[in-house]
Amino acid sequence: MRVLVYGGRGALGGSIVDHFKAKNATVVNVDLHANEKADENIALDLSQDWTAQEAAVLAKLDGHFDGVFCVAGGWAGGNAAADDMVKNADLMWKQSVWSSAIAARIAAKHLKEGGLLQLTGAAPALGGTPGMMGYGMAKAAVQQLTKSLAEDGSGLPKGASVVALLPVTLDTPMNRKWMPKADFGTWTPLAWIAEHLEKWTTDAASRPANGALLKIVTEGGKTTTTEH
Amino acid sequence: MRVLVYGGRGALGGSIVDHFKAKNATVVNVDLHANEKADENIALDLSQDWTAQEAAVLAKLDGHFDGVFCVAGGWAGGNAAADDMVKNADLMWKQSVWSSAIAARIAAKHLKEGGLLQLTGAAPALGGTPGMMGYGMAKAAVQQLTKSLAEDGSGLPKGASVVALLPVTLDTPMNRKWMPKADFGTWTPLAWIAEHLEKWTTDAASRPANGALLKIVTEGGKTTTTEH
Repeated sequence: MRVLVYGGRGALGGSIVDHFKAKNATVVNVDLHANEKADENIALDLSQDWTAQEAAVLAKLDGHFDGVFCVAGGWAGGNAAADDMVKNADLMWKQSVWSSAIAARIAAKHLKEGGLLQLTGAAPALGGTPGMMGYGMAKAAVQQLTKSLAEDGSGLPKGASVVALLPVTLDTPMNRKWMPKADFGTWTPLAWIAEHLEKWTTDAASRPANGALLKIVTEGGKTTTTEH
Repeated sequence: MRVLVYGGRGALGGSIVDHFKAKNATVVNVDLHANEKADENIALDLSQDWTAQEAAVLAKLDGHFDGVFCVAGGWAGGNAAADDMVKNADLMWKQSVWSSAIAARIAAKHLKEGGLLQLTGAAPALGGTPGMMGYGMAKAAVQQLTKSLAEDGSGLPKGASVVALLPVTLDTPMNRKWMPKADFGTWTPLAWIAEHLEKWTTDAASRPANGALLKIVTEGGKTTTTEH
C-alpha cells in the first residue's frame, strides 16, 4: 500500500502518517516541513504561486498511490465589516483550495484505478458562515470540487472515489490548548479519521458514496456520519 | 438613486449602466477600463493583489449607494486531468471571487440601510462541474458568500438584502459571436437583468428572499426564476 498525505506534518496529517506506517504502507508527505516518519517528503515553497507549487509537486512525484489524502488547511474569521476579511479569505483560499486542487491534479496523474481521493471541507460551510466568510468560501469551493471530481469526465482514474470530510471540531492538541474548557466528548478523535481512511482505501465497498460530503459529528465520545 | 456597478464595462455591466442612467441614477463604475456613460469610474489595477485592489477601491469611494451590483466574471474550463486546470482556477478566482468579496466590503461600508447587494453565481455550480472545475469552485464560493451575507452578523447595513443571480447563458454579443447557431430564445436578455435590478432596488417588497440564489432560465424567449 502506498499513500500520499498532503499536509502530513499537521496534527491530523501526522496522525494519518503514523497510522499508515503502522500498517506497513509507504507514505509520501507533502507539506511545508518534513515529517520524519514519512518515507518521502516533498517540501512546499510558500513563496511560489499556485501554478508554480503545482508544477514543483508534480515534478517530484512518480508511481501510483492507493490513496491521496488532503488534510491541509487552517482557520481565520471575519465578516464583511472586518478590515481583515479579504486578507483572511486570501489565506484560507491558499491553505484549503490550492492544496485541494493540487491534490486533485496528483490524483488525476498518480492515483491507481479504483483508488481513493480525500479532501477536507467543513460542516458549517454547508450553509452560510457570516462570521468567517473567507473560510466558508474556501470550504464551499472544496466541497463543490468534490462533486465535480465524482462526475463522469472529471479526469480521475477509472473506478476512483472521492470523499470530502466535514468535521465540526477535531480533537487536536492545539484545540485543547485554545479551548481548554470545551467538552472534548464532542470533538472527533484523529484516530477515527485515520482508521476510516485506511478502511476505505483497502475496502472499496466500505466507502461513502462517490462525491459524498461526509459530515462527521461526535457526541458523548461517539462519532457518526451523514452524507451530503 | 445612486448605484455602483462592479464590472460596468462588460456586456452585462454596460447594459446595467445604460439602464440606470436612463432612469437618472448616478452610476459609479469599477472596472479595468472606464465606461464613459458612468458618472464616475474607478480603475482596477490587475498588477495588484487582492488586498491592494480592495484598499485602492475603498480609498476612492465615499457616500452611500442604493444598490451595489457585481457582474464581473469570466469563463474557463478544465478537468483534473487538464494541464491548465490550476491556472484557469486561479483566473476564475480572481475574476469572480476577488470582485465579489470586494463588492461585499463596499456594501458593508457604503450601502444604504435597506439597500441591495447583487452578486453573480452560475446555475451549473449548484452541482458538480467536472469539465470546468475552477469556474465551478469560484461560483460555489460566491454562492456560499451570498448565504453568509444574508445571515445575522454579516456586517451588511441594517435591512440590506443580498441576491446572487445564476444565469445559464446570457444573450451577449460575444456569446452570439462564438455560438452563432445556438437557440437565442434560450438565452437571457441583458435588459431582463437590468430591469429587475432596478425594480428590486427601488421596491424592496419585490426582491427575492434575502440570500437567494436566483436561477434564471429562459425558454422560448420567456424568462423565469427559481430560488435556491
